[in-house]
Amino acid sequence: MNLLDLVVGKPIKTSDERAEQIGSAQGIPIFGLDALSSAAYGPEAALSLLIPLGLAGVRYIVPISAAIIALLVIVYFSYRQTIAAYPSGGGSYTVARFNLGPGAALLAAAALLADYILTAAVGISAGVGALVSAVPSLLPHTVVICVGILIVVTVLNLRGVRDAGTAFAIPTYLFLGTLLITIAGGVLRVAFSGGHPVPASPLPPPPRMTEAISYWLLLKVFASGCTALTGVEAVSNGVKAFREPAVDNARRTLTVIIFLLAVLLAGISYLVNVYGIAATDPGAPGYQSVLSMLTAAVFGKGVFYYLTMGSILFVLSLSANTAFADFPRLCRAIAQNNYLPHVFGYRGRRLVYTWGIVALALLCGGLLILFGGVTDRLIPLYAVGAFLAFTLSQAGMVVHWRKNRGPNWLQKAVVNGFGAFVTGITVVVVLVAKFADGAWITIIFIPLTIVFFAAIRRHYHSVRMITSCRVPVRPPGADESPIVVIAVDHWNDITRRGIEFAARLSPDVVAIHIEPTEEHPEPLETDWSRFVERPFRAAGREPPKLHVMPSPYRFIIVPIVQFVLELSKAHPERSIIVVIPELVEDRWYEYFLHNQRARLLEWVLLARGNERIFTVSAPWYVGARTQPGTPKT
Amino acid sequence: MNLLDLVVGKPIKTSDERAEQIGSAQGIPIFGLDALSSAAYGPEAALSLLIPLGLAGVRYIVPISAAIIALLVIVYFSYRQTIAAYPSGGGSYTVARFNLGPGAALLAAAALLADYILTAAVGISAGVGALVSAVPSLLPHTVVICVGILIVVTVLNLRGVRDAGTAFAIPTYLFLGTLLITIAGGVLRVAFSGGHPVPASPLPPPPRMTEAISYWLLLKVFASGCTALTGVEAVSNGVKAFREPAVDNARRTLTVIIFLLAVLLAGISYLVNVYGIAATDPGAPGYQSVLSMLTAAVFGKGVFYYLTMGSILFVLSLSANTAFADFPRLCRAIAQNNYLPHVFGYRGRRLVYTWGIVALALLCGGLLILFGGVTDRLIPLYAVGAFLAFTLSQAGMVVHWRKNRGPNWLQKAVVNGFGAFVTGITVVVVLVAKFADGAWITIIFIPLTIVFFAAIRRHYHSVRMITSCRVPVRPPGADESPIVVIAVDHWNDITRRGIEFAARLSPDVVAIHIEPTEEHPEPLETDWSRFVERPFRAAGREPPKLHVMPSPYRFIIVPIVQFVLELSKAHPERSIIVVIPELVEDRWYEYFLHNQRARLLEWVLLARGNERIFTVSAPWYVGARTQPGTPKT
Repeated sequence: MNLLDLVVGKPIKTSDERAEQIGSAQGIPIFGLDALSSAAYGPEAALSLLIPLGLAGVRYIVPISAAIIALLVIVYFSYRQTIAAYPSGGGSYTVARFNLGPGAALLAAAALLADYILTAAVGISAGVGALVSAVPSLLPHTVVICVGILIVVTVLNLRGVRDAGTAFAIPTYLFLGTLLITIAGGVLRVAFSGGHPVPASPLPPPPRMTEAISYWLLLKVFASGCTALTGVEAVSNGVKAFREPAVDNARRTLTVIIFLLAVLLAGISYLVNVYGIAATDPGAPGYQSVLSMLTAAVFGKGVFYYLTMGSILFVLSLSANTAFADFPRLCRAIAQNNYLPHVFGYRGRRLVYTWGIVALALLCGGLLILFGGVTDRLIPLYAVGAFLAFTLSQAGMVVHWRKNRGPNWLQKAVVNGFGAFVTGITVVVVLVAKFADGAWITIIFIPLTIVFFAAIRRHYHSVRMITSCRVPVRPPGADESPIVVIAVDHWNDITRRGIEFAARLSPDVVAIHIEPTEEHPEPLETDWSRFVERPFRAAGREPPKLHVMPSPYRFIIVPIVQFVLELSKAHPERSIIVVIPELVEDRWYEYFLHNQRARLLEWVLLARGNERIFTVSAPWYVGARTQPGTPKT
Repeated sequence: MNLLDLVVGKPIKTSDERAEQIGSAQGIPIFGLDALSSAAYGPEAALSLLIPLGLAGVRYIVPISAAIIALLVIVYFSYRQTIAAYPSGGGSYTVARFNLGPGAALLAAAALLADYILTAAVGISAGVGALVSAVPSLLPHTVVICVGILIVVTVLNLRGVRDAGTAFAIPTYLFLGTLLITIAGGVLRVAFSGGHPVPASPLPPPPRMTEAISYWLLLKVFASGCTALTGVEAVSNGVKAFREPAVDNARRTLTVIIFLLAVLLAGISYLVNVYGIAATDPGAPGYQSVLSMLTAAVFGKGVFYYLTMGSILFVLSLSANTAFADFPRLCRAIAQNNYLPHVFGYRGRRLVYTWGIVALALLCGGLLILFGGVTDRLIPLYAVGAFLAFTLSQAGMVVHWRKNRGPNWLQKAVVNGFGAFVTGITVVVVLVAKFADGAWITIIFIPLTIVFFAAIRRHYHSVRMITSCRVPVRPPGADESPIVVIAVDHWNDITRRGIEFAARLSPDVVAIHIEPTEEHPEPLETDWSRFVERPFRAAGREPPKLHVMPSPYRFIIVPIVQFVLELSKAHPERSIIVVIPELVEDRWYEYFLHNQRARLLEWVLLARGNERIFTVSAPWYVGARTQPGTPKT
């Protein structure tokens, strides 16, 4: 227990939930890390696709960024409204479920779950990728570093929302600070130089133009840039994590996140255009990331440059945290409707949904190990899920406003409707632009997940139906004593206590002894008549019967189970209690020194038995005899 | 069960043991593979050390091989006598135990166990090493191939002695046949060419002489060549595996193995000397094994060459089998004296010592994975163990003959005494010659193992003492009914059946319900009064008490365990039976859909409880309700 306390922290009372809740200052690192970190790779992803256009391609970054920022603002206004309407947590799943029905809700849920798993894996491997390209000697350890970061993020999240927020605050604000200073410095230099700044550090030569501009290329650039919007959903699912007034705090957090992201995207694309920074080929030697070139161009390669690069690297690899904040909450909402195992709804010792965190860690770890920590190929897969969820959420909100018809309902419905329309179009754009690159996998994965959800709910429903009971308990009659079966190995104190216990359960006790010909040469029969039959007869009671069975195949468990099943068949009206005497050691490793047949027998009886067969462990504690200080009897 | 039957084979009756026993034809592949395969690496190991002497070094191989063969013959005569004297299996451990006392026995046991683990690992990796040097594209898969071979050998051994003998017969006899033909062909060519044969295939240029001959070098060559003797012990431990007359069969097997090994060693060293074949550096390009050069020199690189090379490779990688034949028998002998867990003495479904086989597979697999399948560095470690065991075994036999004083006892004692003397000197030689290369690890490992053995025996002894019982059973008195505690979640059929069972165990039932504030909003109390209290009152009985406990930390198990422990403290004279109603699913994966608190509660109660607390599973089978064909009630 002490180790668990140390790693995960001491348990928190349900009633102390308030102390675990967060304000907007902590909300930004927890729920915003994913969205904000996309400033580091969104423009880069877009510019990479523009390489074939040469230096001329760079100027397209401004209109495309403008389109993405416009989309961001639309989504922002929609989610602002959603937070207010669903103060107990209104992600796409919840909103779709209340307004569009279970089908749409499951579609949103499947899309989002897939998206979070991918976001977490891609975030970690992108961060580690940046690290190993800076320190190439770490390259062979890519997977180990990925899994190490995953474990850190998992443990921090298991420690509770507040601890995670505190841990991620410094890198997040360092990242924001350095990037904003770079942008501000760049804008000032542009102003002082009359629009033609000279880079403080020389830029690599621009790529040669090898292709002409096409609408298809611009569409793909836009679709790539849209990955910047994943993670925007997180705040709306996590309203309950905020301190009261929760809605105001959540909305303020969302506002700050979206505002900062918009500033970063706008600033970066403006400066990239003015300085004429083209992306370099990540596969080729001399590769440098866009932000690296930009920071070096503005301030040169000094201390500030390395501070900025370090914080980018840190934030990228921790961006998985947003998935960890939201995935468990989403799983819990789904589990509450019986579409996922109920354990996802249990809050662990630190008031977080332990099982959701563990499930995400395992799935994400599996992806990282499967792909050797290089998850580039997964990038086309995501964004589809996020935009599908956005669309469903906002379409749901339109229905919500129409149903409730509060003040200004039409105006609100128009905001959400416009959002749904724009994000819906984006889904189609992203799906078409990335279809061949892997987005088709989404089309297969999402329906399968929905089938899985439905199967789970069907199972819960059927169990609930058949276990439901409107029949009262039948009090015991006069003659309903069970038959007690006890497995006896040889005569010792464990056997004696077991028989004493068995005899107190019923007057009808059968002892069964398996004789595997070679193991126990001690004659049980003499001990039996002396230590069991004699005292019972003296007390005027029927002694337990001893049943010795040979075991030609040296099996121990199988003949006992067969005996019990036959006994149960022969007495269809009676219960059978199987008493299993068991030696309990002090130290776990001592278990290897004794056979674990007791435990195995219990399992086999449970699996092959029936409802009139019960198994009892009769423990016999070694510690009670060897350590006089701790009496066990 | 069907899968197990397929992989491991159907169970064999203890009384059918005879059919599983083997003759000498099968005994050679089972117990001789290790010894015979050393013909493939023993001369090679010796010649490798002679490389610095150039072509002149090759002639030293003849006297050194002669010394090793002499040692082999001495050990052979000693073990022949041991087999007759200990027909139920007389390895070093048994002989030392009966004649030299437990200390010497444990020394022999530790040395031999270490040796078998190393032999198995080195055998497999040597075979795979030869394979990957022939097919370099397999190099990256070294570990996987090693583990694959290990699994095959393990499964074959789990299938029983006879199956293993059958499977290994063909490669063993192919190996013997091709090598003997090569030697015979070589000798004939030498004869026809008047002592100066011309190689059929040109030999690589001999190495240049870089060092002068020294006694120290010759000592190291001899110590290296001695690895050929490991595995000779195996037959004497496995006498019981042979068909009657077991002693004769075992002795015949040993004779054939030793004879063949001597012929191979003599033939190879003779031909190597005549042809002037010097070893090539295994690390350098153009490396060729000595046997490869020899076979090519005699017959050229035709079909026969590749057949020979293939069979060598096969036999090398399967030489681990001897360790698998003997290690489990040795473990069993040790376990029978309580120095190892008793499970090592249990014979599995195919009459083999399953646990010994599994333990060796795990230890050997661990070594292979740890060293990446390249276990060259382990070679210096072994041979010390084998020769230590030889020495102790033969010293024990000297004492044996002196005690028993049968006919010709003095003569027999002299044979064994000479054997002990010579092998004893060899231990010192091997230890000194290989000390710096790693033999020092043996000096640390063996005492630690002995301490471990002693600790296990002490534990068994103390458990045996405190569980031993000369007190008769106390028949139940009039008023000794237990208190029954039942954990109730919410009202359903599982709960109903649990309470009915609890009420039949004792009139004194306490139902305990944990209220973790958020999970079950259904009011249990109304159902309780309607379905439990009312029928009990109607029958004129006291209904079970319902005890509702809040759980501020959302723990379920902890408050139940605390309640039970406090109840037990409050009633120190009464037993407490904890009834745990449990839903049993049809399919294993459905378990994930229901919490496994029943099982966890049982474990925690066992670990933290006392001897008056008993736990009962009350199973409720879903299958009994959903599949009308299989009635469970």
